[in-house]
Amino acid sequence: MKPIQIGLLGLGTVGKGTYDVLIRNQAEIQRRTGRVLVISMVADLDVDRVKSVVDPNCEVVADAFKVITNPDIDIVIELIGGVGTARELVMAAMAAGKHVVTANKALLAVHGAEILAAAELHSVMLGFEASVAGGIPIIKSLREGLTANKIHWIAGIINGTTNFILTQMREKELSFETVLKEAQALGYAEADPSFDIKGVDAAHKCSIMSAIAFGIPMPFSDAYIEGIEQLQSEDIAFAEQLGYRIKLLGISKQTDQGIELRVHPCLVSEKTLLANVEGAMNAVMVKADAVGTTLYYGKGAGGEPTASAVIADIVDMARLLASQVDARVPYMGFHASAMVNTPILSINDVVTCYYLRLGVADQAGVLASVTGVLADHDISIDAMLQQPAAIGQDRTELIILTHSAKEHVMNEAIAKIQLLPTVLVPVIRIRKEDLN
Amino acid sequence: MKPIQIGLLGLGTVGKGTYDVLIRNQAEIQRRTGRVLVISMVADLDVDRVKSVVDPNCEVVADAFKVITNPDIDIVIELIGGVGTARELVMAAMAAGKHVVTANKALLAVHGAEILAAAELHSVMLGFEASVAGGIPIIKSLREGLTANKIHWIAGIINGTTNFILTQMREKELSFETVLKEAQALGYAEADPSFDIKGVDAAHKCSIMSAIAFGIPMPFSDAYIEGIEQLQSEDIAFAEQLGYRIKLLGISKQTDQGIELRVHPCLVSEKTLLANVEGAMNAVMVKADAVGTTLYYGKGAGGEPTASAVIADIVDMARLLASQVDARVPYMGFHASAMVNTPILSINDVVTCYYLRLGVADQAGVLASVTGVLADHDISIDAMLQQPAAIGQDRTELIILTHSAKEHVMNEAIAKIQLLPTVLVPVIRIRKEDLN
Repeated sequence: MKPIQIGLLGLGTVGKGTYDVLIRNQAEIQRRTGRVLVISMVADLDVDRVKSVVDPNCEVVADAFKVITNPDIDIVIELIGGVGTARELVMAAMAAGKHVVTANKALLAVHGAEILAAAELHSVMLGFEASVAGGIPIIKSLREGLTANKIHWIAGIINGTTNFILTQMREKELSFETVLKEAQALGYAEADPSFDIKGVDAAHKCSIMSAIAFGIPMPFSDAYIEGIEQLQSEDIAFAEQLGYRIKLLGISKQTDQGIELRVHPCLVSEKTLLANVEGAMNAVMVKADAVGTTLYYGKGAGGEPTASAVIADIVDMARLLASQVDARVPYMGFHASAMVNTPILSINDVVTCYYLRLGVADQAGVLASVTGVLADHDISIDAMLQQPAAIGQDRTELIILTHSAKEHVMNEAIAKIQLLPTVLVPVIRIRKEDLN
Repeated sequence: MKPIQIGLLGLGTVGKGTYDVLIRNQAEIQRRTGRVLVISMVADLDVDRVKSVVDPNCEVVADAFKVITNPDIDIVIELIGGVGTARELVMAAMAAGKHVVTANKALLAVHGAEILAAAELHSVMLGFEASVAGGIPIIKSLREGLTANKIHWIAGIINGTTNFILTQMREKELSFETVLKEAQALGYAEADPSFDIKGVDAAHKCSIMSAIAFGIPMPFSDAYIEGIEQLQSEDIAFAEQLGYRIKLLGISKQTDQGIELRVHPCLVSEKTLLANVEGAMNAVMVKADAVGTTLYYGKGAGGEPTASAVIADIVDMARLLASQVDARVPYMGFHASAMVNTPILSINDVVTCYYLRLGVADQAGVLASVTGVLADHDISIDAMLQQPAAIGQDRTELIILTHSAKEHVMNEAIAKIQLLPTVLVPVIRIRKEDLN
């Protein structure tokens, strides 16, 4: 059979990784695929740079539409990123009958409904394993590996930048601002890191996993998103004293009332594997009814790890390209006609546990008044830590871990606690997940 | 389309789990598959017991061949176990044109070549996700998720019984014999536990993963296998003092000389995720060139976790059953014609690190003579721990962690050390893996 011809849009870090891995592991991949895979065309604005790094037989163009309209191209890989040009190109490629592989989580999270409909309409395959957690085959695991299960929840460390920052803050006892600068210098954080540190990138990825896990339309617009930029190193240290680490988790959970979808900093027991996922690594935990808890761990970003996922999608397509009939796995694991519009819960209705840090007056009766408010709201206490006041200080730190409570009830309790005259500064509140 | 009809051979723990999960999650699975899946026939010697637990519409027979020869059955699930009857039934089912799903690792490891050839010959699909690590989709990850990669090595905790025993030995400081009895009482170990504790079960699973990772014929007969039955709790404690846990690992590694395939107890740094996989849980670590290190964690046994993998295979088949052409993933990830006969290395040629425990005379010059022998064999020392001799004792324990050495060189060095007059008892030697 003739080689499968691939057109690559965007030769940045992931594009170069994909190009390199496909050539380096050509023999291995051919043994697995039964077909030869060739990147025969690359579109990139910097034509000269690209020409200097790719094979002379590979055509390099500045105009991505030349790749899309080339009748010899079977599969188009979109690695441009963003939701503007990338969206146009992906839609045009599918309209031209090309199968599409993309690593673009923002595109899928924001325009997923439109893109999946177009793939269905034009009967093309769409691969996006690389859009979540880099090289970890989590999309495949959810879409094909766990098909027997009713999935209860997923919880993931799915943003390497923020996990790197949180790890450094804990290990070196440094502030968020200091570590962010370091991360930027080391290339672990972008010059404009807001998508990462504000949790938006994690929310994109969590939305994609949520749609696949539960068979619902892409729920990104209903996600609750909170980043790590307000996190103080004191809280990381206090959490550690109590046996917890603070992680930025993307959580989606099926409840009787609806689906929770939220990204926020979260205390996780140091005894769990998830708490021990450090640095820029990613991991996704999945709780399902038959299989129980499974966890998937690996590099969530970088040229070759992401290329690994891009190429896995291409190999899947190549294995199916001989087929005349529809033997494909549905894009989102569930058939389009079987999607269910389960509502996404407001964060106010989410039930979780909490870490509270209170700067209180160092005097009798403080504890009684604080715990009294919690008791009034039916919130019970799991653990407590009282720091001795520093010499000459009349303020002390009171840390409370609570059992589970509804978010809006906790917010009401905190508002009342805040009004106590002995509570001197704004209450710090971080959520805590039991993951069991 | 008409329902896909499934025949189940053997309604034990996994069979019952499969039956229950398919009914309980019928709606969810149908939304994913686009087809209705029905277990319409069960073969089990205990017909009465089975009839009392399955739906009256499900035909129950004692003779498994009645299932195999039923023209309405599309897929046969073999859950009988063992390599005798199970082999006959699987071969007969495939000859009758049935697609087969099995959880039988022994069958695949021992008769894999014959079974894969029959599947190829009769053009049927063969699913065996459940044969390795229960519900963890590790076969799918290796066969489809990591297809871009040249795999360097896999290292797995793939036997829950032994991991449960090792965890209990460490946590409760008990002997192997005591914990084994406890595990048997709790149902974590079989009445005849030898397949588990001697490492044979892990070797079956590791051989299957090795064949898929490297595209080689089933290598089980060349596996090096060492169990945990000789392991002493002292060594678990000493390892812990040095920052390590002892795990029974299944390791397969591609080297320039050939492929390592071995199962044995192994020190693993407590800082790794693998070391923190405790109790009956399983985990497989995979190191590959593009993606780097990934890890897959979950329940490795039990009715419903294993059923999760069995059903995932059925859903994969159901998704492909409409197809008239060969769009299947090759059974072993690589196409049969692309298998390579890379030799499996003798354990003598394996390079690894070592933990040595020496009972030595408590006198001057002992350390110099021991380390002298190691130096003569070019074996360098990574860490050392000398226990003070107990009062009234003239014998002390000397623990040495070495850097990497070839197994036969280490064996020669140990033989020389054993001859030293100051070395009073047989040297304990446990391998240690860096996993990096």
